Amino acid sequence: MYKIDLNCDLGESFGTYKLGMDDQVIPYISSANIACGFHASDPLVMSDTVKLAARFHTAVGAHPGYPDLVGFGRRNMNASPKEVRAMIQYQIGALESFCRANGISMHHVKPHGAMYNMAGKDEALAQAVAEAVYEVNPDLILLALSGSKMIDAARKLGLRAASEVFADRAYEDDGSLVPRSKEGSMITDENLAIERVIRMVKEQKVTSIHGKDIPIQADSVCVHGDGPKALTFVKKLREAFDKEHILVETFQPGLR
Amino acid sequence: MYKIDLNCDLGESFGTYKLGMDDQVIPYISSANIACGFHASDPLVMSDTVKLAARFHTAVGAHPGYPDLVGFGRRNMNASPKEVRAMIQYQIGALESFCRANGISMHHVKPHGAMYNMAGKDEALAQAVAEAVYEVNPDLILLALSGSKMIDAARKLGLRAASEVFADRAYEDDGSLVPRSKEGSMITDENLAIERVIRMVKEQKVTSIHGKDIPIQADSVCVHGDGPKALTFVKKLREAFDKEHILVETFQPGLR
Amino acid sequence: MYKIDLNCDLGESFGTYKLGMDDQVIPYISSANIACGFHASDPLVMSDTVKLAARFHTAVGAHPGYPDLVGFGRRNMNASPKEVRAMIQYQIGALESFCRANGISMHHVKPHGAMYNMAGKDEALAQAVAEAVYEVNPDLILLALSGSKMIDAARKLGLRAASEVFADRAYEDDGSLVPRSKEGSMITDENLAIERVIRMVKEQKVTSIHGKDIPIQADSVCVHGDGPKALTFVKKLREAFDKEHILVETFQPGLR
Amino acid sequence: MYKIDLNCDLGESFGTYKLGMDDQVIPYISSANIACGFHASDPLVMSDTVKLAARFHTAVGAHPGYPDLVGFGRRNMNASPKEVRAMIQYQIGALESFCRANGISMHHVKPHGAMYNMAGKDEALAQAVAEAVYEVNPDLILLALSGSKMIDAARKLGLRAASEVFADRAYEDDGSLVPRSKEGSMITDENLAIERVIRMVKEQKVTSIHGKDIPIQADSVCVHGDGPKALTFVKKLREAFDKEHILVETFQPGLR
Repeated sequence: MYKIDLNCDLGESFGTYKLGMDDQVIPYISSANIACGFHASDPLVMSDTVKLAARFHTAVGAHPGYPDLVGFGRRNMNASPKEVRAMIQYQIGALESFCRANGISMHHVKPHGAMYNMAGKDEALAQAVAEAVYEVNPDLILLALSGSKMIDAARKLGLRAASEVFADRAYEDDGSLVPRSKEGSMITDENLAIERVIRMVKEQKVTSIHGKDIPIQADSVCVHGDGPKALTFVKKLREAFDKEHILVETFQPGLR
Repeated sequence: MYKIDLNCDLGESFGTYKLGMDDQVIPYISSANIACGFHASDPLVMSDTVKLAARFHTAVGAHPGYPDLVGFGRRNMNASPKEVRAMIQYQIGALESFCRANGISMHHVKPHGAMYNMAGKDEALAQAVAEAVYEVNPDLILLALSGSKMIDAARKLGLRAASEVFADRAYEDDGSLVPRSKEGSMITDENLAIERVIRMVKEQKVTSIHGKDIPIQADSVCVHGDGPKALTFVKKLREAFDKEHILVETFQPGLR
Repeated sequence: MYKIDLNCDLGESFGTYKLGMDDQVIPYISSANIACGFHASDPLVMSDTVKLAARFHTAVGAHPGYPDLVGFGRRNMNASPKEVRAMIQYQIGALESFCRANGISMHHVKPHGAMYNMAGKDEALAQAVAEAVYEVNPDLILLALSGSKMIDAARKLGLRAASEVFADRAYEDDGSLVPRSKEGSMITDENLAIERVIRMVKEQKVTSIHGKDIPIQADSVCVHGDGPKALTFVKKLREAFDKEHILVETFQPGLR
Repeated sequence: MYKIDLNCDLGESFGTYKLGMDDQVIPYISSANIACGFHASDPLVMSDTVKLAARFHTAVGAHPGYPDLVGFGRRNMNASPKEVRAMIQYQIGALESFCRANGISMHHVKPHGAMYNMAGKDEALAQAVAEAVYEVNPDLILLALSGSKMIDAARKLGLRAASEVFADRAYEDDGSLVPRSKEGSMITDENLAIERVIRMVKEQKVTSIHGKDIPIQADSVCVHGDGPKALTFVKKLREAFDKEHILVETFQPGLR
């Protein structure tokens, strides 16, 4: 039987500000990436979100980002590898505390936004991310873009890594994401998106933007819970997985 | 032989801003309270400070404060017990991460500034502090003002607590600190300050501002490392302790 | 003909986080209090909100608060009068810049949340607020709780002040607001709330929670735009004003 | 007689954290760039620094930066031109408020750190900076790197601009600064540095790192006040200027 993980960013509210439909999307996902207060969230939101994930037995991951609340961690920042390592360790620990207080273990770490993108392409940053995680807890799993520098860095270090794919994004021939600024970068047809994901899971293949079949490692599919439309898509995806006998379950990759 | 702990707040620098003579005071103290990024410090400073403490085998404690960098955590804030609990768990975890990355264990938690003062007097806040620590790790020790509500709250909960005394502060008849605004609140004569501390350690007694002998529990003396004068005092205190055969060692209170 | 101002807090979004239905409530109000980045908002939101107010010819006021984004400026903070004065001047200036860039003048200043409450009761803070405004621009008007220390402080200084009343709050015999924690503090019946406001405007009187008729100065009524229910109430209030021949217009108090 | 401006960044302290020897360097400079709370400073520090500059009749400029306190505004941030424009207007206004409260006028604006560097090279950012200033007050002067995109953008817009040169930096053949990472980028010999500045002032020429004489516009020299060594250099520079009959006076460029 085929298996796949569905991961979703949760706990992105901040003080009075509410974001996301966490309690509605959580029954459908197997892994939650929980914001850690740098790009979103605050201690109380983190506490509540960990409790929610614990109740649903959803695997909890830290979702560290750049210290940029107003930019939601989406703006590239020229932070050094040393700074990034410390930022990540700080945020992993902060979330870990709420895991302990709720009697659960942290499962993985997925960098957020600009940090995810930058460390996916830059070897020194990728290494900083992998080392940050490994030093704090070598049993954690790094969740990162399939084929990215972070996956390589984790493997070199002996840290387990899980490869993330996107249902709604087009891929280049080399397996990288087509930049959003380029035409055709988004897969807007939901049925096509679902078909593509199923093929990634079953055949470990996807058709690139240039029509070429390329290999792709798919351990986890990123879904969203930030609106009714996103929610409907997650449900549709789950139904399709059921029909295809694909089991939704959090990732537990071995060392490769 | 008598024993006492000397604790000092370390790691209070922030980015470009330097504060404290951490590397000069650390050989003389037995416990370090390390700022956690809310009232002072940043991830890189925390990482470096934990490394420093690890090198000197100094017991490491988290020093959580209110989220008030510009006020250095010294301004009372009307945060709810629930908010304070989450703030503390967040900060404990953040520091814990650097302890793990450096192969050491966290030893204690001492709230900072306005949080220390407010939770020392308010039962609900005191309970929130004690529970925050206990939930994350029941083996941690809460370091708090001798005779304060935090000490009571810890004991009720089954959390170990260590009682802190001040060399340079006068005490009221009930064992509380004379407010700084009152005349005579500060013990400015260094020799007198040292004498008083020695008596607190040996006899568990101190003379109140009204001339009365009162009982006081002294597990740890708070010292400062923020200037040459503070540093000189710490050295003098250590010499006096040597002469009096008082061993400086971190606290390991049992449950009382 | 009777006149009254309707004021509403606008521009409380922050980065990705949206709050309030600014563009829907603005046609119904005569004064906008725009958040200045300390308790809510960011530079881009401020720029957009000033543009919106300029388009609707709504009087623009600065809405400075405590530096507490996560608490939305609602938590009391023990900041000194000197600190509060500087915070207010900083925030007035920041908003003023967007007024200039859009060719309009700032009209008033209304402190937010905990700052509004604290300075309403504390003479030294009230004086700091009034002086902060006066020093930057003596032509600005301070909008504050009717009968509060801020109104007194402004008058003593020669700064114009406008008195704010609340439709949905009960009043004590001395004209102060009944604390929210007390039973009966909120006027939940919308029709009663509207009747009370109309009487405040026409007769400068209101019935206290103890059933006593008390005098009240009403230059402006605070309304909300943070949800469909609030919006409906504003429309109902405007209709009632029309029927009673009460003109909605921003305040221009003389010196009293 | 020759004229030149000496500008220095002031008001970079933050809360408890002290930075710079502002009151010692201010007698020697003619223009102060005052930090505005994003990369350094806080409202109280800004208030005090403006008072200091007012007392010394030093021309006051806003020194806006990226919202990155922990990185002191030195880390490149991928903020959009629209965001940068709003950030700058916010910060100009905040400082302007303290100018008004102290009865002085703001004279210029000099972006800080990473914002200065990025907007010096990127046309869209340069335009955003110039427009931000112009929209708020077209009488302000933009102080920017001699020969940079910001100088061009200001001129295109009809905003006055002043060209800044560095005593301690080497120049490329095209007039740009040699990156600090390259060997020979710093002029470490103080006498040589002074000679070079004098030549820039008198002949509007400097010798590039490749030994070529290149033209350079010098309206203002950047000096530092962050340590005793920096202070000594400023005094030496002033003495040399006196000997060469170069008058130190703030810039008042016409439109070019």
